[in-house]
Amino acid sequence: MSDKVRIALDAMGGDRGPDVVVAGAALALTRHPESEFVFFGNSALIAPLLDARPALKAASRVVHTEVAVKMEDKPSQALRYGRWKSSMWLAIDAVKKGDADVVVSGGNTGALMAMSKFNLKTLPGIERPAIAALWPTLRGESVVLDVGASIGADADHLVDLAVMGAAMARILFGIDRPTVGLLNIGVEEVKGLEQVREAARVLREENLPGLDYFGFVEGNDIGKGTVDVVVTEGFAGNIALKTAEGTARQIGEYLRGAMSRSIGARLGYLLARSAFRQLRERMDPRRANGGVFLGLNGIVIKSHGETDPEGFAAAIDLGHGVVRDQLLAKITAALGRPGKPATSPARQALGGAAS
Amino acid sequence: MSDKVRIALDAMGGDRGPDVVVAGAALALTRHPESEFVFFGNSALIAPLLDARPALKAASRVVHTEVAVKMEDKPSQALRYGRWKSSMWLAIDAVKKGDADVVVSGGNTGALMAMSKFNLKTLPGIERPAIAALWPTLRGESVVLDVGASIGADADHLVDLAVMGAAMARILFGIDRPTVGLLNIGVEEVKGLEQVREAARVLREENLPGLDYFGFVEGNDIGKGTVDVVVTEGFAGNIALKTAEGTARQIGEYLRGAMSRSIGARLGYLLARSAFRQLRERMDPRRANGGVFLGLNGIVIKSHGETDPEGFAAAIDLGHGVVRDQLLAKITAALGRPGKPATSPARQALGGAAS
Repeated sequence: MSDKVRIALDAMGGDRGPDVVVAGAALALTRHPESEFVFFGNSALIAPLLDARPALKAASRVVHTEVAVKMEDKPSQALRYGRWKSSMWLAIDAVKKGDADVVVSGGNTGALMAMSKFNLKTLPGIERPAIAALWPTLRGESVVLDVGASIGADADHLVDLAVMGAAMARILFGIDRPTVGLLNIGVEEVKGLEQVREAARVLREENLPGLDYFGFVEGNDIGKGTVDVVVTEGFAGNIALKTAEGTARQIGEYLRGAMSRSIGARLGYLLARSAFRQLRERMDPRRANGGVFLGLNGIVIKSHGETDPEGFAAAIDLGHGVVRDQLLAKITAALGRPGKPATSPARQALGGAAS
Repeated sequence: MSDKVRIALDAMGGDRGPDVVVAGAALALTRHPESEFVFFGNSALIAPLLDARPALKAASRVVHTEVAVKMEDKPSQALRYGRWKSSMWLAIDAVKKGDADVVVSGGNTGALMAMSKFNLKTLPGIERPAIAALWPTLRGESVVLDVGASIGADADHLVDLAVMGAAMARILFGIDRPTVGLLNIGVEEVKGLEQVREAARVLREENLPGLDYFGFVEGNDIGKGTVDVVVTEGFAGNIALKTAEGTARQIGEYLRGAMSRSIGARLGYLLARSAFRQLRERMDPRRANGGVFLGLNGIVIKSHGETDPEGFAAAIDLGHGVVRDQLLAKITAALGRPGKPATSPARQALGGAAS
């Protein structure tokens, strides 16, 4: 890796395509001038946007393609028409070929995961990748995974998620041994799914060097920031993430309604408007935009499809951070040494760690 | 059922026991003067509380027992020492014997479910009861079930949940054919668990008279109020419920912090305080206090253990409402006619409904 951070961008991904992607990159460049961008997509749309931003243009290349993955297509459809030639595929391929350090896309999540898995392949011993989210909490931020890459998880997979999530938290939060909790529906040892209990036993008994196993946590512990890393399988994780987003939006609506209902409230709103601005910023889902695909031979960042330039820039910032801090190398190291049998990645990680 | 609504109360349940239960009953009585209460628990603690409230005392009986189920015990432990003689068991037993129309307890959820199942038994064709929550939304309220009675659900059980939840929504919201959504992690037909897809197929193809099947919904649809009834298995449902509670508390903290940070904000808060009071009320978890156990031969209402008199009164109100509107009779009718084989309750319900 050179001093430059080379970022591949799927310019056609997301609901608003190149407009948001190019404007987001321009914002991110002001914060990280050592970035280099490769835009994949329709150059007739991208070039004029770059012409209007000379500083960004000087740090960018465009690779033209006319194929773009649609937001509503199934992964299998997207793979059929988009493999080898879509902007999404080519952006991922740049990471595979070593032409870029990370790829950021606001496109169709299912297609992005399918293409990433197909092209980059999973890390040795990892069968299924995960999507990790950065979740704002009362104590700061936590890593929550898996928020939707795959449904269901056995104990081994949950331990893998704990190891990968802890590596991400170590890097992003600068903590030596992040605390890790397993999401469950009761704090008593007796409750919950068999595989969650088994993962708890493994994490408790094997004292992994890179993480501090806390125990079970419940849904309300996520927002409290009880632990640095919350581990769950993708179905429950996705429902938790979307439910929290929905609740935040709901309360935002209540607040807007309450603050416009009387003259006193409107006056109060004016006086307290900087406080409201702060609150809005804290509740802003754009601040934590970007899911990280973990468990692949390469780093893929998924931005929300409906985000704006500020949100897309936040996803690029996240990509920048994980490249600079060598997330991939650290996860690979935490998961076990190369050359070992890959039958039980969790056990392998434990063995590698214990020796 | 007489004109009176007879309510059995587990006076020892909840973190604060008889204090909250008796005060909550007094509040509920002012709203529903036709209520009659039976308090189960330590009469030495209950009697003085009733003596201080003559109106309540006149509408109440006390059944003394010295055994109380502890909040932290496992269901199996609670059953061992509490069966036949604890306040929780005796309150449930009053419903079984026909001495009360509904039971309300703020005690240990697992023990309450275990005792309810053991004593009341499940309805014909229903193997596992569910806990239904009333969830405040931008459009009003929705019924969400199962929020933690049991883990995992096959397609038949999900269809049962849809039928029971719709019966509850019909009664509580006064809607003829409530809309029902299946909680999933994508709106495309292809996504999600096999059993959720299969339940979707059944609900779509069989046009059940008592509900209007909407399709898949995601976590953020719950707060929006996209559907009247959200159906999911208990693990994901409990995580969704707790995550939403945690997010609401988190935003409440942000708001408190923001409103005390500057003089302008404090002044603004004063001017807008009635708006804030409204907001607090809308966000107040006590308003929706009370999970309803569905699928049993009797109605059991679970109040939050840590609630106050206002919250406990809301749980009693809920119990009052479902008794007055004959929830149990309507669920039993919707689930199918007696005497039919109980191999597939979902199919049975469909058969009963179609004829």
